[in-house]
Amino acid sequence: MKCEIIAVGSELLTPYRQDTNSLYLTEKLNEIGVIVHFKTIVGDRHRDLVNAVRAALARVDLVCVMGGLGPTEDDLSREAVAEALGVEVHRDPQLIAALAARFAERRIPMPENNLKQTDIVEGAKVIPNAKGTAPGLWLDTKFAGHRKLIIMVPGPPSECKPMFADECIPRLRAIIPVRHIAKRVLKATMIPESTADALLAPIYTTYKDVETTILAGNAEIQLHVTCAKPVLEEAQMRVDELASRMEEALDQHLYSSHGESLEQIVIYYLEMKQETLAVAESCTGGLLAQRLTSISGSSRSFLGGAVVYSNELKTDFANVPHELIEAHGAVSAEVAEAMAQGIRRRVGASIGVGITGIAGPGGGTETKPVGLVYVAVSYNGKTESMECNFRGDRDRIRLWASQQALDLIRRKLMWPH
Amino acid sequence: MKCEIIAVGSELLTPYRQDTNSLYLTEKLNEIGVIVHFKTIVGDRHRDLVNAVRAALARVDLVCVMGGLGPTEDDLSREAVAEALGVEVHRDPQLIAALAARFAERRIPMPENNLKQTDIVEGAKVIPNAKGTAPGLWLDTKFAGHRKLIIMVPGPPSECKPMFADECIPRLRAIIPVRHIAKRVLKATMIPESTADALLAPIYTTYKDVETTILAGNAEIQLHVTCAKPVLEEAQMRVDELASRMEEALDQHLYSSHGESLEQIVIYYLEMKQETLAVAESCTGGLLAQRLTSISGSSRSFLGGAVVYSNELKTDFANVPHELIEAHGAVSAEVAEAMAQGIRRRVGASIGVGITGIAGPGGGTETKPVGLVYVAVSYNGKTESMECNFRGDRDRIRLWASQQALDLIRRKLMWPH
Repeated sequence: MKCEIIAVGSELLTPYRQDTNSLYLTEKLNEIGVIVHFKTIVGDRHRDLVNAVRAALARVDLVCVMGGLGPTEDDLSREAVAEALGVEVHRDPQLIAALAARFAERRIPMPENNLKQTDIVEGAKVIPNAKGTAPGLWLDTKFAGHRKLIIMVPGPPSECKPMFADECIPRLRAIIPVRHIAKRVLKATMIPESTADALLAPIYTTYKDVETTILAGNAEIQLHVTCAKPVLEEAQMRVDELASRMEEALDQHLYSSHGESLEQIVIYYLEMKQETLAVAESCTGGLLAQRLTSISGSSRSFLGGAVVYSNELKTDFANVPHELIEAHGAVSAEVAEAMAQGIRRRVGASIGVGITGIAGPGGGTETKPVGLVYVAVSYNGKTESMECNFRGDRDRIRLWASQQALDLIRRKLMWPH
Repeated sequence: MKCEIIAVGSELLTPYRQDTNSLYLTEKLNEIGVIVHFKTIVGDRHRDLVNAVRAALARVDLVCVMGGLGPTEDDLSREAVAEALGVEVHRDPQLIAALAARFAERRIPMPENNLKQTDIVEGAKVIPNAKGTAPGLWLDTKFAGHRKLIIMVPGPPSECKPMFADECIPRLRAIIPVRHIAKRVLKATMIPESTADALLAPIYTTYKDVETTILAGNAEIQLHVTCAKPVLEEAQMRVDELASRMEEALDQHLYSSHGESLEQIVIYYLEMKQETLAVAESCTGGLLAQRLTSISGSSRSFLGGAVVYSNELKTDFANVPHELIEAHGAVSAEVAEAMAQGIRRRVGASIGVGITGIAGPGGGTETKPVGLVYVAVSYNGKTESMECNFRGDRDRIRLWASQQALDLIRRKLMWPH
């Protein structure tokens, strides 16, 4: 079944806003084996909307229209779909009664324009909206002699998503052949995409019935592995088999077998091994602490940290000897290691991390260029550091530095020796 | 001139990837007065592509096709546009020579499939690609008796954006009537969108020739104010006039008159007033420090900070008396104020900030629910705190807490008494 998603709203045609609902719809549709062939974004203009709906009906079997179902003058989806099909819109007495009851319950007078939401396209069935006033519509109809399905859902994500997942997907499942989709997400870091692909392509290309998508970005690589079969267990078996072969190939670069974030994994291992963590950050300026504390429950293993931009603070908060900074410079392996050791002792944690570097764009020199970062970990009686040279802008360098630190902690926890 | 943007690429029809280039193209097109009526996303399938191009040619004057110009079998945009127009594709001898020279210069043998990039649609002019091998194409043609423009640019943002801005926009400017667009972005924070709109709508609705878009999100409100006139100065005058009336209405809530971020503004004022800042964070876990240090040059005014998750660290790093925590609890106005004062003295900064609260989802109680946050600022011999109740999930509560802290610093710097 070929599908097109039409996102309706003039704001989605500005430089500032983007349709994101369609990613969710696509995920849900793919899960039942429906492929999205087109996405169209169209503004709140009647003629354009009719045009978009007609173009979609002419080229796919299932058209999902998102948005334009509200009570304002700009909400034109119902009228447009009706015109595209050559049918009428009529006000539904049952919907009027339900809407009136809803307002009465809240003891608010109902504004007249709300009645627009009780309009239904001739031949449509009403899809209840658990989260708002605008109902969805379901049309099983014909266009140019072919059977077509049209699903209309509201635009606000809080209404669109549950209506689509809870009401529309089960109805679609009842119509289309049963397929079950198994899925796994693997994640790896500190490995270039080309290296990962060279490692993995010889493996995943032999699984013709499994689809593997490699996504690189945000200092990590994601592998989305999916397989569709009439029986779920069979699909799951194929996915798991491929996944475990890829896990083996990625070896220590793999940090997550089920889609968890790197910070989740680090917090998880800290807790499991009953270790505690403290960090001293210079160039990342709190980013590492922020990522760790974004995980709920992190306070059990993450004790705290210091953002030690100035040399004085490196000494005061992380016990870095002043002479060491004098001798090697603030951006050096020695200072990173002293920071890791100092903050660990100072806070009384079992693991200490130190990060110092030059995030740019200013501050680089011939011998210490922008992107040079030292990351150190102090654990188990040993302190080790790593010299990194990251490319890119300030944000990217900071992200990679925090990623490298998280990955070092993970590796120390998993392979302590 | 009505425009449609077609983004080509099967990855843009998955749940994982989204076309973002079109936001940039839309911005550039709007600047010369071209309105985007449709955006279509289509995969690397020949039939679908031809269909998308034909649908676009039938409904708009200008079609921008992004992507599908590379050397692989999946790159089908040239063939699809040619078929939609009923013309041929032919290999261009000049392009072949240029491509061969490029590879010769780098002393790399040219893979055969690269020649695909020298194909041009009959009647098209070549648009040079300063950042890659795939040239763009410019077609000034007819479809069903009407004049149509087709612009084809590569998909990778690093090639697409400069080609569009530097090559395509000047060519479009030469064709369409001259219009100049003036633009301002105002930003305000800690004011609900509905309150802002109630304040501002009576003002901006009287400026019929100026377009005002209100965007709320990420704990702030943005006002995009644009005006198009044949003479730039006239447009600028109207925008500035409306902007200054809105600035007045927003009063202290306005933090930026030209689109700067809140952290940029805070760093700017710190530097201008020659003040220095230190922060002690509990529930925001480094987010405030991370936002401040994301600004290049922040090290001149931001001295550092402490992430004091544990009570011991609140005492050790921010000098919060142990008895104070015992008496009032870690989440209290008293502790927030002691943190602000303590970190300021400890670091030797002129301004100190303390944040303590419950970011959730766990840790809330009847009297101290999730979302309760105290933010304190110590400055100029005074320490003041604010009690906040933020709604939402952990990320949102942390974001709002850091936003409130930045806003308090800004207000103290601008209105010290």
